[in-house]
Amino acid sequence: MPKPIIMDCDPGHDDAIAIFLAAGSPEVDIQAITTVSGNARIEHTTKNALIVAEMAGLRNVPVAEGAGEPLVRTAVTAPHIHGETGLEGPELPEPEKIVEGQHGVDLTAELLLHAEEPITLVPTGPLTNIAWLLKRYPGVKKNIKDIVLMGGGSYGNWTPAAEFNIYADPEAARIVFESGLPVTMAGLDLTHQALAGDEEKEFLRGAGTKAAAFTAELLDYFAGTYRSLFGFFAAPLHDACAAAFSINENVFSTEHLPVNVETSGTYTMGMTVIDSLQTTGKAPNVHVARDLNNDVFWSMLKKALERLP
Amino acid sequence: MPKPIIMDCDPGHDDAIAIFLAAGSPEVDIQAITTVSGNARIEHTTKNALIVAEMAGLRNVPVAEGAGEPLVRTAVTAPHIHGETGLEGPELPEPEKIVEGQHGVDLTAELLLHAEEPITLVPTGPLTNIAWLLKRYPGVKKNIKDIVLMGGGSYGNWTPAAEFNIYADPEAARIVFESGLPVTMAGLDLTHQALAGDEEKEFLRGAGTKAAAFTAELLDYFAGTYRSLFGFFAAPLHDACAAAFSINENVFSTEHLPVNVETSGTYTMGMTVIDSLQTTGKAPNVHVARDLNNDVFWSMLKKALERLP
Amino acid sequence: MPKPIIMDCDPGHDDAIAIFLAAGSPEVDIQAITTVSGNARIEHTTKNALIVAEMAGLRNVPVAEGAGEPLVRTAVTAPHIHGETGLEGPELPEPEKIVEGQHGVDLTAELLLHAEEPITLVPTGPLTNIAWLLKRYPGVKKNIKDIVLMGGGSYGNWTPAAEFNIYADPEAARIVFESGLPVTMAGLDLTHQALAGDEEKEFLRGAGTKAAAFTAELLDYFAGTYRSLFGFFAAPLHDACAAAFSINENVFSTEHLPVNVETSGTYTMGMTVIDSLQTTGKAPNVHVARDLNNDVFWSMLKKALERLP
Amino acid sequence: MPKPIIMDCDPGHDDAIAIFLAAGSPEVDIQAITTVSGNARIEHTTKNALIVAEMAGLRNVPVAEGAGEPLVRTAVTAPHIHGETGLEGPELPEPEKIVEGQHGVDLTAELLLHAEEPITLVPTGPLTNIAWLLKRYPGVKKNIKDIVLMGGGSYGNWTPAAEFNIYADPEAARIVFESGLPVTMAGLDLTHQALAGDEEKEFLRGAGTKAAAFTAELLDYFAGTYRSLFGFFAAPLHDACAAAFSINENVFSTEHLPVNVETSGTYTMGMTVIDSLQTTGKAPNVHVARDLNNDVFWSMLKKALERLP
Repeated sequence: MPKPIIMDCDPGHDDAIAIFLAAGSPEVDIQAITTVSGNARIEHTTKNALIVAEMAGLRNVPVAEGAGEPLVRTAVTAPHIHGETGLEGPELPEPEKIVEGQHGVDLTAELLLHAEEPITLVPTGPLTNIAWLLKRYPGVKKNIKDIVLMGGGSYGNWTPAAEFNIYADPEAARIVFESGLPVTMAGLDLTHQALAGDEEKEFLRGAGTKAAAFTAELLDYFAGTYRSLFGFFAAPLHDACAAAFSINENVFSTEHLPVNVETSGTYTMGMTVIDSLQTTGKAPNVHVARDLNNDVFWSMLKKALERLP
Repeated sequence: MPKPIIMDCDPGHDDAIAIFLAAGSPEVDIQAITTVSGNARIEHTTKNALIVAEMAGLRNVPVAEGAGEPLVRTAVTAPHIHGETGLEGPELPEPEKIVEGQHGVDLTAELLLHAEEPITLVPTGPLTNIAWLLKRYPGVKKNIKDIVLMGGGSYGNWTPAAEFNIYADPEAARIVFESGLPVTMAGLDLTHQALAGDEEKEFLRGAGTKAAAFTAELLDYFAGTYRSLFGFFAAPLHDACAAAFSINENVFSTEHLPVNVETSGTYTMGMTVIDSLQTTGKAPNVHVARDLNNDVFWSMLKKALERLP
Repeated sequence: MPKPIIMDCDPGHDDAIAIFLAAGSPEVDIQAITTVSGNARIEHTTKNALIVAEMAGLRNVPVAEGAGEPLVRTAVTAPHIHGETGLEGPELPEPEKIVEGQHGVDLTAELLLHAEEPITLVPTGPLTNIAWLLKRYPGVKKNIKDIVLMGGGSYGNWTPAAEFNIYADPEAARIVFESGLPVTMAGLDLTHQALAGDEEKEFLRGAGTKAAAFTAELLDYFAGTYRSLFGFFAAPLHDACAAAFSINENVFSTEHLPVNVETSGTYTMGMTVIDSLQTTGKAPNVHVARDLNNDVFWSMLKKALERLP
Repeated sequence: MPKPIIMDCDPGHDDAIAIFLAAGSPEVDIQAITTVSGNARIEHTTKNALIVAEMAGLRNVPVAEGAGEPLVRTAVTAPHIHGETGLEGPELPEPEKIVEGQHGVDLTAELLLHAEEPITLVPTGPLTNIAWLLKRYPGVKKNIKDIVLMGGGSYGNWTPAAEFNIYADPEAARIVFESGLPVTMAGLDLTHQALAGDEEKEFLRGAGTKAAAFTAELLDYFAGTYRSLFGFFAAPLHDACAAAFSINENVFSTEHLPVNVETSGTYTMGMTVIDSLQTTGKAPNVHVARDLNNDVFWSMLKKALERLP
């Protein structure tokens, strides 16, 4: 029986690829896609989620809009990385699929409360919806199997210390990290190993589907912003790493460590402070991603694209 | 003509080795040794500096006591690393050499004001004395060639985010880093490459001098605490790296980057926040040490020990 | 036509009196009572709200449970002030009235969205529900007439700088204060003028109703904790002041000033920083309560108690 | 025998009047005047101290320059209050008196170390010199009788929460307040009672001396800036209050309370957090000034001006 997951995202080029990956992997069953403000404003990430879900053939998977703002801060977006719409590059079709009337957090709570087995949450944007869920519906905790998230790392990409998803809602991240639930963190140390250069792009395009072609177009744009902003020669598929782990835990190794989220600090707000040398004496609370198995990663992504329309 | 340097330190096992290294290197001329509270309380670090200077044959080099407390905080020491005296391990002789009557900061200012050429400062403890000097004697700045310090890094050893020297006096570090003076930072990323294991210890002992034997005894103790506390199989010669660079800039590579010192933050106080991905758009202010040339390092250290008594 | 209000509270002795005051004042029409964690845990404040609403004859007024925890922090309660149940002192009947199935925030949003005229919110506990409402349902803002709250002041009662309601959820308070909505703040400077000593207690008891007798018993207990903790000779009717202003704006004078909520700070977290001397140049955002008209206050309270069962 | 005091100041209109007051009061013996960066830059406050000391006939009292910058921050000055020179208004003579060669902190330490009886320090500017003294010369503590300072209060004049002297060097203030020495704090709550309006100005001018005429001119300017900036109708003689207390403790009442200095905080940095309601359970560390005895204050000031040249 496939493993049930709920994807919470802010597509976002790499979120889109994460959805393709999960949609094309029979090992998991996507129960819902919820959206959050992050890479772009909520109206964009919701529309993008609908577009991508439709392209992935997820006809019966509900897409519900979640938080339009961080828990207690104002929204931060990343138009210089993902464009104003969050999914710049390929031409975007108008989606026929329509968004749920229910709020994303309420839908997630309902799914969890009626779940036959615990569900894995796969958040690849700021953690606003997940934190809100835990605060608003404390009773659902027991039905959450674990949380496999993209975010954080030992250094940042939004500030020198903070990765974007954590920076955008650090209080939400703190609530999730301190929730006591099993958390796997695919941070920048890991995702900067999942680099789609020309070779990888052609490899994926070889899947031959419409989704594969769309993915290649996404990578063109995304690689471009990474080149001009960070001097990278390839695009890191951040969010796809989290989705990949929810499908196959062999895709990267992890280390169980104490991790705290800095919510104050002049230069460090939004940092995930990883206690690698065990100086704090605290109990480990996060499975920190370490080494990517590139063979497993690219091969599962290509196979998924082959299975999509 | 040898290059004039002033060593500001808190011996400390690796400070002692740094002094031996500089004392045995004809490329540099130690103008003074000043002490600071750090690895141990100021009375211990001063006494240790006298002992080590005497063993190194530095008969005419003045040793002056500096700050007994951080600029605005209370003192932190590291007895579990260096023992209560700061130099646990070998039997310590009573020094005949006596400490200057002048305060370390005042002595440094005087030397700088009367210097024939700009002097390199080599601080290997908390930066209290250097910051105090810059605040108390702003006129000396033009006579400081540069500052080559041991401290900081992209991760910590005292907390997950902060290295001990910076943690112990973060405001002092901020003043030094923002001083506009050329600063070279030998942080943990670098110094954890300078690992003295059994092989290196025997190599150094081969220098055959009393100083070499003493060094080996220091390494025995220091490696022991690093093994039990951090699971290291060898002792990192932190402070010797800074001294080495003041003698020969080929000993490690550097990258010129913006670095800020975090002085607040719940989990990050004392962190040196290095902008490796250039997300801040700030001008570089610190030469961050990157890769150690192990051959150069160990060979210069052995040669120095050979030249000592 | 009476003015519509929604009371959001954490009863609490003075919250109970605030409900009596509003229930007995024909000038206002209580649309709903919502509860929040504060003086006691949410299960207690909800039960207390039901008890008090029933005693006040509010048969048709819905009572809905709100947030059981602050937006991003863990709950703080005040058992040494209000007892473990939040309403220690008088014997408490089991309420027949039952709580709504709907969450307090959702009920408030629904009432606002269907309101014929803008509604005044009267929060007398931590501002969690109100902030949550503004984040979750940004569209309701235009239907909020104003917010008349008890909280803050130029000094604190929970710490030297912070009053309890603001301290318990400072991020929520910041969201409310920065919302752009008209906010009237009845802080400690004001509420410490509304002191119920023996004379006032007897005056109120003279109303002769069951509610009046219950109020006198609440005051006995509340005055006791204020005497032993703060050395006060009388009980300040904090929350009743906010209710009173929603009924009759002549009950206290206000000054329109810039006010910021401190959410960090070692000693000042939760402080309402009032710019009385206008040093910031910011626009005023809060009507800060200044002088209580004691005659108006006590007389309106007595009349209200006379009208209750 | 007169009581020995050392005045540490940043003249400053009210600092000048404080010096006149002490110089004309036989109850105290000014051992030295040291200067600090504050109301104006250090070169101005030092020159002003020389001018005022000369006008006060303090021929044998050494004036020594102290810290030109706060302990760890950059300097803040108040030109819109005191003018660029720190003493705008009256025509200023070129002083004949010359500044000591010694640093103010070193002079104070020397005086304390050789004192026959403990000395009272009267700082009326930022507390940089005093904190530095305590850090640099911990041995002098036992020769300090007490510290009577102008600064702080339950509200601010530089920000809504912080008074200028504390704001300008909060870390220094924290060191002084936590030193364990007896500290009397004449804050804004007190000094805003010492208002020199037209009546007081004429009363003082009646002293008939050159110093009295100069004082009246200072008050003209100072009252002007207080009128235009704060809407005050009279000039508060902040610093003279501290000097007055060092001469006669009956000039204002005090309350012994726990006080902490906030050195972080978004809106509260530099606040003196006074625990008036004793919510912290800490031991009292500061004698907080409460009520001014106006009769005593103005009469001692007039008498002092009568005794001056």
